[in-house]
Amino acid sequence: FFSKPRDFSLPNSSWGPEMMRLYEHYNSQCEAETEGGGKQKGPWRRIPSYNRSLKRKTSFFCVCFSGGVYLSKLIQSKARLFTRSIKEAGAAFEYVLFDNSDAQKCVGILQAGHLLEGPPGFVHGGAIATMIDTVTGAHAAVLSGPVMTANLNINYRSPIPLGSTVLLESSLDKTEGRKTFVSCQVTSSDGATLHTEATALFVSISVRKILD
Amino acid sequence: FFSKPRDFSLPNSSWGPEMMRLYEHYNSQCEAETEGGGKQKGPWRRIPSYNRSLKRKTSFFCVCFSGGVYLSKLIQSKARLFTRSIKEAGAAFEYVLFDNSDAQKCVGILQAGHLLEGPPGFVHGGAIATMIDTVTGAHAAVLSGPVMTANLNINYRSPIPLGSTVLLESSLDKTEGRKTFVSCQVTSSDGATLHTEATALFVSISVRKILD
Repeated sequence: FFSKPRDFSLPNSSWGPEMMRLYEHYNSQCEAETEGGGKQKGPWRRIPSYNRSLKRKTSFFCVCFSGGVYLSKLIQSKARLFTRSIKEAGAAFEYVLFDNSDAQKCVGILQAGHLLEGPPGFVHGGAIATMIDTVTGAHAAVLSGPVMTANLNINYRSPIPLGSTVLLESSLDKTEGRKTFVSCQVTSSDGATLHTEATALFVSISVRKILD
Repeated sequence: FFSKPRDFSLPNSSWGPEMMRLYEHYNSQCEAETEGGGKQKGPWRRIPSYNRSLKRKTSFFCVCFSGGVYLSKLIQSKARLFTRSIKEAGAAFEYVLFDNSDAQKCVGILQAGHLLEGPPGFVHGGAIATMIDTVTGAHAAVLSGPVMTANLNINYRSPIPLGSTVLLESSLDKTEGRKTFVSCQVTSSDGATLHTEATALFVSISVRKILD
């Protein structure tokens, strides 16, 4: 009924050597070889990424949850996920997330395009915050189901040169009732430079509560 | 030599009634009437906004500061400010900043377009962080000169419906040596709903240090 949506977490021609190297590093660990030479699930899993909530198209719940009562139909139909809203490959956020449920870790690999500029030549603090929210939010959702961001506390240590590839690593700190606490470090692709450190708090949301 | 750049902080046809109402509210206070019926500077000042660092085109310093040694010329020439990188009016961040130096306050008026979606129907936490960084950063720069973001601590209280207009109000908390501490509240356009609260720390940067 609907054409298959594009998964933006797969490589495209704009990805540079560092982006490809990190992608291959984690992607190769999504499958492991068995003793008999067969294949089985590896420790990491690539998380697909689309430019809008797919569920919304097919589910009544999601039409409600999407704020249908507040939003004009025009806005609803044109709405796109912030991090995937620019069509030109390589221009903005090129990223892929991998999750390791045994280690309770999630990583994001980001190649920062020329439309993410803040200080001249460097990535905007808000674009870094956006990627931290994305990686920690996906991690919290894997761990705890549907969540909303309640707090982000971000320390900017060293600016990220525009055009570079960085690694975001999210670790679970603890869960407490409806709260999921995670930490995130943003480093250069070789791990030598710590660019940004953050903690994030997510709160589990009840679908019933939202609809009430 | 260069054509005059577009000032994105001026109204365009995508601005809705709430955006226009708040704009007019602050804009009307940019000029005050004198006793004699003439005009003089009012308490507020509109801060112009462009889609890239203008200085870079004309100044050697800014070419250096722009990370010229790290960035390919292609990326440099295409680089655009993150918040002004989408050309379609109304699609992403429509905003204008006003500064009141006597009150040590800065406000941002934001109309959140359909490309800023996070949770279905609501603005992305990263887009909110981006606007907080923008308003508090501009405020800190007015107060302290060139600065870089060192910390953002953001509490998300109530999600912002996609398409709505919100007000960001930045207040100076204190300055300590090279540090400027500001707070920011994001409320609905009528002030009735507190959406987000944040503190931000900016550190003054020395041009000489960057070039060394």
